[in-house]
Amino acid sequence: MSKPTPISGFPEWLPPQRMIEQYVIERIRRTFELYGFAPLETRAVEPLDQLLRKGETSKEVYVLRRLQAAEGDIDEDTLGLHFDLTVPFARFVLENAGKLHFPFRRYQIQKVWRGERPQEGRYREFLQADIDVVDRDTLPFHYEAEMPLVLGDALGGLPIPPVLVHVNNRKVCEGFYRGLGLTDPEAALRAVDKLDKIGPEKVAELLAETAGASDAQAKACLRLAEISAPDASFADQVRALGVSHPLLDEGLEELVRVVEVAAEHAPGLCVADLKIARGLDYYTGTVYEATLSGFERFGSVCAGGRYDNLASAGNDRFPGVGISIGVTRILGLLFGAGALTVSRSVPTSVLVALPAEERRRDCDRIAAALRGRGIATEVAPSAAKYGKQIRFAERRGIPFVWFPGGDGEADTVKDIRSGDQVEADSTAWTPPAGDLRPAIAGA
Amino acid sequence: MSKPTPISGFPEWLPPQRMIEQYVIERIRRTFELYGFAPLETRAVEPLDQLLRKGETSKEVYVLRRLQAAEGDIDEDTLGLHFDLTVPFARFVLENAGKLHFPFRRYQIQKVWRGERPQEGRYREFLQADIDVVDRDTLPFHYEAEMPLVLGDALGGLPIPPVLVHVNNRKVCEGFYRGLGLTDPEAALRAVDKLDKIGPEKVAELLAETAGASDAQAKACLRLAEISAPDASFADQVRALGVSHPLLDEGLEELVRVVEVAAEHAPGLCVADLKIARGLDYYTGTVYEATLSGFERFGSVCAGGRYDNLASAGNDRFPGVGISIGVTRILGLLFGAGALTVSRSVPTSVLVALPAEERRRDCDRIAAALRGRGIATEVAPSAAKYGKQIRFAERRGIPFVWFPGGDGEADTVKDIRSGDQVEADSTAWTPPAGDLRPAIAGA
Repeated sequence: MSKPTPISGFPEWLPPQRMIEQYVIERIRRTFELYGFAPLETRAVEPLDQLLRKGETSKEVYVLRRLQAAEGDIDEDTLGLHFDLTVPFARFVLENAGKLHFPFRRYQIQKVWRGERPQEGRYREFLQADIDVVDRDTLPFHYEAEMPLVLGDALGGLPIPPVLVHVNNRKVCEGFYRGLGLTDPEAALRAVDKLDKIGPEKVAELLAETAGASDAQAKACLRLAEISAPDASFADQVRALGVSHPLLDEGLEELVRVVEVAAEHAPGLCVADLKIARGLDYYTGTVYEATLSGFERFGSVCAGGRYDNLASAGNDRFPGVGISIGVTRILGLLFGAGALTVSRSVPTSVLVALPAEERRRDCDRIAAALRGRGIATEVAPSAAKYGKQIRFAERRGIPFVWFPGGDGEADTVKDIRSGDQVEADSTAWTPPAGDLRPAIAGA
Repeated sequence: MSKPTPISGFPEWLPPQRMIEQYVIERIRRTFELYGFAPLETRAVEPLDQLLRKGETSKEVYVLRRLQAAEGDIDEDTLGLHFDLTVPFARFVLENAGKLHFPFRRYQIQKVWRGERPQEGRYREFLQADIDVVDRDTLPFHYEAEMPLVLGDALGGLPIPPVLVHVNNRKVCEGFYRGLGLTDPEAALRAVDKLDKIGPEKVAELLAETAGASDAQAKACLRLAEISAPDASFADQVRALGVSHPLLDEGLEELVRVVEVAAEHAPGLCVADLKIARGLDYYTGTVYEATLSGFERFGSVCAGGRYDNLASAGNDRFPGVGISIGVTRILGLLFGAGALTVSRSVPTSVLVALPAEERRRDCDRIAAALRGRGIATEVAPSAAKYGKQIRFAERRGIPFVWFPGGDGEADTVKDIRSGDQVEADSTAWTPPAGDLRPAIAGA
């Protein structure tokens, strides 16, 4: 065959980057579990009709068919790859409600697929790390204030730039639009959602066209979208616009609480930003979008919100709130900027040098003794000259080379960075804690 | 929408099972890293022509297309979901050879997809955990002896029944068939590979039809396939059949070594079993198939082998050897038999009881203090009566409930299994080590 080439939009990391990714995933997972979120993994596929049920996503779906299946049109049984983890989760909750305890807190870290045109930080296959809480019938509001804190904790301990969580509340927007006299608040929301992409003038045109807004109404919508503050002061700015509606009051009260809880537990993490709308139309309360400091121009790296109607069937209704970390997106941006490094390209801490091929079994025993005590160890591939074996370790960043003794001589171990070499016993020697595993660092 | 139903062949675990799966994955991963295998993850898709290049797999491939793409025939750019992790790995090595150090040891734990008819222990989407070693131009034999040891270590520490690795060598079969005078050893191998499915008589017919074997030749092939031994004695049984060929000698020598190394490092792990052929035709040396004790009737749960020609382009050639653990297959069988349990259905170790909704922030601070010291903690969803809050913990198997004090009273923590309740400080109290994380146990 000829040499293969990458497929645009389907990123693959080399092992050093994959080690960083795993470190990041583990940290996120550990934090999610500390908050009591239970792990879940759903299948990669959903029935196509389920995927097309909500939002403007049909263009993004990859459809599956078996190579040997009879040719035919797309039918009810057609499967597509999931494009997020929220829709599959809502389906899972409905399907398994009788076996779950509510409120149900779960996390899910999986690949998703979208047939979008690839660009920097936008992929066709990427990893997301989601948390959601769903409850039966009603969901207490306090979970909406908890989501950003979990996010802040999960990413806060990593050697990456800080995230800023922009928060809004659908009730604020809908209440405000209704208070203005607009009768199709969803159309208005979809128009305002395009603000960053097309600018205020085009949004005003769109508001007139799709939501029937007058000039004055369009201006008021845009003024609302301009409001942003790291504390409760945003509420006064909204009230100063002179619009009133019960839903607006309810939304403002909730948004103030989210911002205040965040300010107490994680100062600097959250900002109220009233232009945040989130395109998918299933959100009904708080919405979140997080940006990475220094990478704001690439848009949000985390997103989520409260949804009341995503998981319901017959009389069963499971309102929820969740947030999703775009792991591949964050790593893609940071790898692109050279902003994350790892100290070696293999997990290995010790290379056992091989004096002669006949002594491979002795070397295997030394390696087994070290591994038995949690020290990642390889035996040299061949009994080359020691200089060559040391270069094998050097090229991979393996810090220690172990030299088996023999004929009564003790084994020795050499730190090939400093050149220090000491006698060592494979049943007792341990590397410094910092050398046990590859070390991940920021720029 | 109506209540969704499962899709046959796409298993989904409930959170307790997913916790067990994660535990198993972590143990496997940790072992792979102790042996110096570097992590890798490849994209889910490969060009269809690449997937159809080797072996009889075309019937199993899921083909992708974007929902909005123009209708059209399958062309060169068509993508399919990978059906194993070896073919993508071989492609990755060719694509990135210039950036990798050889010999290259990597592990890969990912979902794969096959459009097969689902049955017990056979899925359309399932998780595999693979290790492979590839080298440039030539690969030392000793890696073929190492693979079963890594497998034995990875699964040996888990609360699952022991695995038995059946080992054979393609050179033994090919050399034997050639020594017999058969000119199409691959056809003979494919016939013998069906022994367990269709029995010796039908295999003999197939050998005559597809490999041109005489009655005597077919009988000799079947006699070879009957040979099995946990030690080097199998070689004498083969020689007693009176067939000789240089490739047969080479294969026997290698197979003896694999069995002897395993007998020294992990007695009882390996057995030479000369009927093992592996259907995929890319193997060229040692081949492996492992069964799970007590579940032999379900066939192999791990498989692999040496391949010399899978990764080659122009003058670049990267022979390799690898083994794959069928994680979903193992768990599906054990879950089906009720042979794996977990002590709770959430990661949570402590539930902080909520005396009144106004005290939620106090409770959040207690939870933060416990989490800060690695103790998974939730705060109760509402300020219900304490009896109800304790039942919330009980239903999930959360072992401890924390009662905030107040007005100068100290906090207390209660082990709800024993009823023991003690005064506790959230900056100092720690649960017993066994209660820190959910405990996984065998039947």
